[in-house]
Amino acid sequence: MSDLLDVVRGLSKKTESKIVLVVLDGVGGLPLEQGGETELGSAKTPNLDKLAADSQMGLVELVGAGITPGSGPGHLSLFGYDPLKYVVGRGALSAVGIGVKLNSGDVAVRGNFATLGAGRVIDDRRAGRPSDEKNAEIVAKLKAAIPEIDGIPVEIYTESEHRFVVVFRAKAGEPLGANIGDVDPQVTGVQPMSAVAHDPASEKTADLINKFVERAEVALKDEPQVNGVLFRGYSDVPHFPSFEDVYKLDAACIASYPMYKGLASLVGMNVLNVEGHEDALEGKVQTLKDNWDKYDFFFFHVKKTDSTGEDGNFAEKVHKVEIFDELLPQILALNPDVLAIVGDHSTPSKLQSHSWHPVPFLIHNGHGRYDPAQRFTEAEGLKGTLGLRKGTDVMPLLMANALKLNKYGA
Amino acid sequence: MSDLLDVVRGLSKKTESKIVLVVLDGVGGLPLEQGGETELGSAKTPNLDKLAADSQMGLVELVGAGITPGSGPGHLSLFGYDPLKYVVGRGALSAVGIGVKLNSGDVAVRGNFATLGAGRVIDDRRAGRPSDEKNAEIVAKLKAAIPEIDGIPVEIYTESEHRFVVVFRAKAGEPLGANIGDVDPQVTGVQPMSAVAHDPASEKTADLINKFVERAEVALKDEPQVNGVLFRGYSDVPHFPSFEDVYKLDAACIASYPMYKGLASLVGMNVLNVEGHEDALEGKVQTLKDNWDKYDFFFFHVKKTDSTGEDGNFAEKVHKVEIFDELLPQILALNPDVLAIVGDHSTPSKLQSHSWHPVPFLIHNGHGRYDPAQRFTEAEGLKGTLGLRKGTDVMPLLMANALKLNKYGA
Repeated sequence: MSDLLDVVRGLSKKTESKIVLVVLDGVGGLPLEQGGETELGSAKTPNLDKLAADSQMGLVELVGAGITPGSGPGHLSLFGYDPLKYVVGRGALSAVGIGVKLNSGDVAVRGNFATLGAGRVIDDRRAGRPSDEKNAEIVAKLKAAIPEIDGIPVEIYTESEHRFVVVFRAKAGEPLGANIGDVDPQVTGVQPMSAVAHDPASEKTADLINKFVERAEVALKDEPQVNGVLFRGYSDVPHFPSFEDVYKLDAACIASYPMYKGLASLVGMNVLNVEGHEDALEGKVQTLKDNWDKYDFFFFHVKKTDSTGEDGNFAEKVHKVEIFDELLPQILALNPDVLAIVGDHSTPSKLQSHSWHPVPFLIHNGHGRYDPAQRFTEAEGLKGTLGLRKGTDVMPLLMANALKLNKYGA
Repeated sequence: MSDLLDVVRGLSKKTESKIVLVVLDGVGGLPLEQGGETELGSAKTPNLDKLAADSQMGLVELVGAGITPGSGPGHLSLFGYDPLKYVVGRGALSAVGIGVKLNSGDVAVRGNFATLGAGRVIDDRRAGRPSDEKNAEIVAKLKAAIPEIDGIPVEIYTESEHRFVVVFRAKAGEPLGANIGDVDPQVTGVQPMSAVAHDPASEKTADLINKFVERAEVALKDEPQVNGVLFRGYSDVPHFPSFEDVYKLDAACIASYPMYKGLASLVGMNVLNVEGHEDALEGKVQTLKDNWDKYDFFFFHVKKTDSTGEDGNFAEKVHKVEIFDELLPQILALNPDVLAIVGDHSTPSKLQSHSWHPVPFLIHNGHGRYDPAQRFTEAEGLKGTLGLRKGTDVMPLLMANALKLNKYGA
């Protein structure tokens, strides 16, 4: 059966209308006490309240019942890509998370620096957890020693402590496979393993990995502690039908964290520059204003509603919602044809982690019926006309409300 | 595309938390008069009311919109196995229904005793509907005459009246196919048909069937009425990913009727012995208490809410709900981390049969939001935060609420 994305691709059309999709990361929550209010329910949000009373509302489940979405699957679902079908592996997510642009056919690999003793036996799988500065120093040595292998460009990036990322850049028309066994034996006292290809398409990559390991050990032979590399988590880069092709939208990403910019670029959005530190909300609004005439779709990402939940700081998460509420009138003043507000997953302060609970979803200025929901909260979302939806329903609903979809069939 | 079961299998983890899944068989109902109360709405259930007010609620559709589930698909759906994908044939369900344990590769067949006249022409396709005692007497003769065919063990079981079940036990590594034409021509005045294999994997089984028919007619040649056998409904045994493998649970089944024990054993649950007659509710609670420390998942089955509905006895179905309500505090006293109550389908007394209507679904003691539902009824389930769900969503939601699922993707 073809999925909704294929159907939408066949029906979408270019129009003048503009869509803003605001993702309040991890915004869904839980009450601290049974029967109490969630973070959204506790927040004082006069602007959101007024908007919600005049909008269509519902709830969204990003991956499936009971499934807690990572940031990757959560966003891909909101962008309309079924997260069970479009899987971004750990290596690719690590690369994307530090701002590396990946192309179809490339392979991204997560690496650990290790300490090797006599006879290449692993003494420490994390090389004593080096500082980020030491990591960068080692990465610089490796970059100098291994700019390419057998004509394949090799890129090496610091992640943090003992973690680094390697990207092998495929030549046009010669995609690299990533179905390869680990180098990391996950125990000490033995040698690193040889990378073994599990299918013919991955044989070249396995050879690149083994040559990288060998040349890295030569380059680091005088290092007392950081003198070996271990690999696991190889990812090829899935082919995403481009956002522009599917939706006929000129799409812009307004985000400050590399992970979200990377996910947006994977589906082909234009990633705009944002001025300011950390979540840089004012800078994001300025970017939105400055680029208003140039695009017809804006993905506007707010991070701190998630990180405060991860910290277990209920009051601070409430506060971050209130800060967004203060800023909302500036977005409304641009008069988007369709404004949507949603989360990519819940992050209840109570659980200090992502969770499986559905998130509230709001569509403003579309073409909706009377909607009883009065606030942008989980409890009011439950009453809304949009119902409980899959994440992949969000984009089709936005497209429809922006009158950008033709009729299906005659 | 992978289904939710595969996703859950990759995310599930062993923890200390315990889950109890109570299935009130056929508990969903209908009002006798438009606008009236259902059986659940009419029942006096102080304990369930208190529980529901303090729980997450919703409604569950077991197979699909408008589809009335049999007991097999209803339960498989609750256990997380898509009933459209995991099909248990009639022969296998009959075998399971009389308590026969089937293994992958075996073939179970439904048989009818028939009366054959001169020239093997069928006079009566049901052999005059013999008594169950006569059936057992004939089955005993057949068992003595046909313990095996060509080295394949043959088991023969009384079902009722003219119905019996044959199980052909496959040798290890040599699964028997079940894609075979009927022996029963479904009309009288003609001879039984030869069983014909519809694929190479079923040729051996077809040969076994034809030899069985021949040898049975010899063994029964002196019987005046029950002197022939007809077959239709051949089932191989589907391979179920084991419950333990998918969910990392040590699961126990507490049920009194063979069908439910059989379904539980098909997915790999441990079937516990229950003392007592008929539905044996007190015996089931005792079994739950006695085994509380040995398992972390309990499927607790209550049958009489269904059978009273099948009888069209509204008042008695109400009463059976009230009996469960009286017993509920003993289950709660064990303090399960997650207690779920749900039905496997509706059985409205008004229809005297299973029906397609969604059933109420309750999750207690998990991690839920404020939930407006106040009673365990169809009408209150509609208000609940869990929404209207597929049956296969139940297990992922229980696993999530028991904090037994890792995050999907990074």
